[in-house]
Amino acid sequence: MIEQLFGGIEGGGTKFVCVVGTSPDDIRAETRFPTTDPQATIQKALDFFRYQMEERGTLVAVGVASFGPVDLKPRSPTYGHITTTPKPGWANVDILGQISRGLGVKTAFELDVNAAAFAEWRWGAGQGLGSLVYLTVGTGIGGGAVVGGRVVHGLVHPEMGHLLIPHDRTADPFPGSCPYHGDCLEGLATGLALEQRWGRRAEELPPDHPAWELEAGYLATGLVNLILALSPERIILGGGVMGQSQLFPMIRERVQQLLAGYVGSPALLGQIDNYIVPPLLGDRAGVLGAIAMAAEA
Amino acid sequence: MIEQLFGGIEGGGTKFVCVVGTSPDDIRAETRFPTTDPQATIQKALDFFRYQMEERGTLVAVGVASFGPVDLKPRSPTYGHITTTPKPGWANVDILGQISRGLGVKTAFELDVNAAAFAEWRWGAGQGLGSLVYLTVGTGIGGGAVVGGRVVHGLVHPEMGHLLIPHDRTADPFPGSCPYHGDCLEGLATGLALEQRWGRRAEELPPDHPAWELEAGYLATGLVNLILALSPERIILGGGVMGQSQLFPMIRERVQQLLAGYVGSPALLGQIDNYIVPPLLGDRAGVLGAIAMAAEA
Repeated sequence: MIEQLFGGIEGGGTKFVCVVGTSPDDIRAETRFPTTDPQATIQKALDFFRYQMEERGTLVAVGVASFGPVDLKPRSPTYGHITTTPKPGWANVDILGQISRGLGVKTAFELDVNAAAFAEWRWGAGQGLGSLVYLTVGTGIGGGAVVGGRVVHGLVHPEMGHLLIPHDRTADPFPGSCPYHGDCLEGLATGLALEQRWGRRAEELPPDHPAWELEAGYLATGLVNLILALSPERIILGGGVMGQSQLFPMIRERVQQLLAGYVGSPALLGQIDNYIVPPLLGDRAGVLGAIAMAAEA
Repeated sequence: MIEQLFGGIEGGGTKFVCVVGTSPDDIRAETRFPTTDPQATIQKALDFFRYQMEERGTLVAVGVASFGPVDLKPRSPTYGHITTTPKPGWANVDILGQISRGLGVKTAFELDVNAAAFAEWRWGAGQGLGSLVYLTVGTGIGGGAVVGGRVVHGLVHPEMGHLLIPHDRTADPFPGSCPYHGDCLEGLATGLALEQRWGRRAEELPPDHPAWELEAGYLATGLVNLILALSPERIILGGGVMGQSQLFPMIRERVQQLLAGYVGSPALLGQIDNYIVPPLLGDRAGVLGAIAMAAEA
């Protein structure tokens, strides 16, 4: 019997991860390299998969999970492209087309954070649920939603990092770091905002620093808006900033305060520890999502 | 051939609408009556459908679109109940069970605004789209989303009216009218908030009154958050306050300003007149959604 192996690429803004395998427990090969210019970076990915295919036989399909914004509309002429990114050289790059033509196998395409959301639904902290939101808080903030077993797309794709939230400038005069919106959620709560506001990198701020109370408040407000807009059955919070695990109880408490009992669900009242949770797949969620998408291609 | 007729009930907080028919162009009978206590109100609905069934033969199914919050989980012991409403007498009422047992036909159940969203997707301003958000702005603010032809449920259901948005208390010292959250979207922008802030009913404020610029700003901020959370392919804005048609161009302009070009879609840039639109089904959207849901039961 010929093995049914899949390829997965997570094309991030700072690094690419490529794997061959079938599931979190069955990764046969993996490589990571920094994201440089599109030509060299995509060539490295092609080289990895060509070598793997020579060693192991062809892959059934390869999933590409890319940083965004991306075009997810299969009928669009720019389907599979990275679109308007400010990242030098990467705007309008046909990442899917280059992988697809370069390998000659079936492909699937998704935004990186959407792929991570899908992987957490398929194998991780949201397994079997009817819906979930996955939010990653790092140098940026991104989010994806799975509803009824499918990733939520739409006009483009969600951009949950840029939610517009209340900002009390008396309590927090920091104007926000987002070049588009100033004090949107990302502008107030990203790792970059933490560093600019406090003059120290997030990981250098002690756990009892007032930074975290403020951070928890902004993130909780963003989550409340996602609960009100989407009513997800669980929220998974990942990314570098969430490595500060003291944030979880603070965020859960603030979410309850902000909702003020309005959404009368046991999950939000007594059982919130199981509602706002860390991811289970760690930093492989994106590339595992790419494999899961490839398996459905 | 026996006709396949459906029943639809929109159970609102102030009135009930019951119809028999198959589509917006084929309503065979309709009745409207005020919402009083649950027993008398539900009895009136039962009487209407029993009479119709004597006249026309049995109905294939009846859809119930109820004011909320409601329990939409088919496996829950309180499925089909209105849950925690402050409306006197209506908390924990098994509206679906009473209709279902009273008529002995198949039933479908949905939140009123979700049913309206579904009807606008099936027959109205969102026909054929991959996704939409329907928001109604009246004495309250409610919203529903359709993604991939299905109404978005989840932990409970969305409560888009209560989004937490920036509120500049210098420009607008009104503290908000929401009993739960004060100055959430509903607290700032509902018809009740307009009346409390300006001391006059919304329909008495002239079209060039500064109330509308403020109102457009709050509604636009809410819409931007829904765009960022869900990326809908269209937003349909209905309800009594949106009868002030001067709001549409003001809201569209503010949405573009607030997004600041971040979501680079033609629908949000050049073609926003077709993106944020009024409903096509008017005040029958909810009950038509009930019929559409009955047809899928």
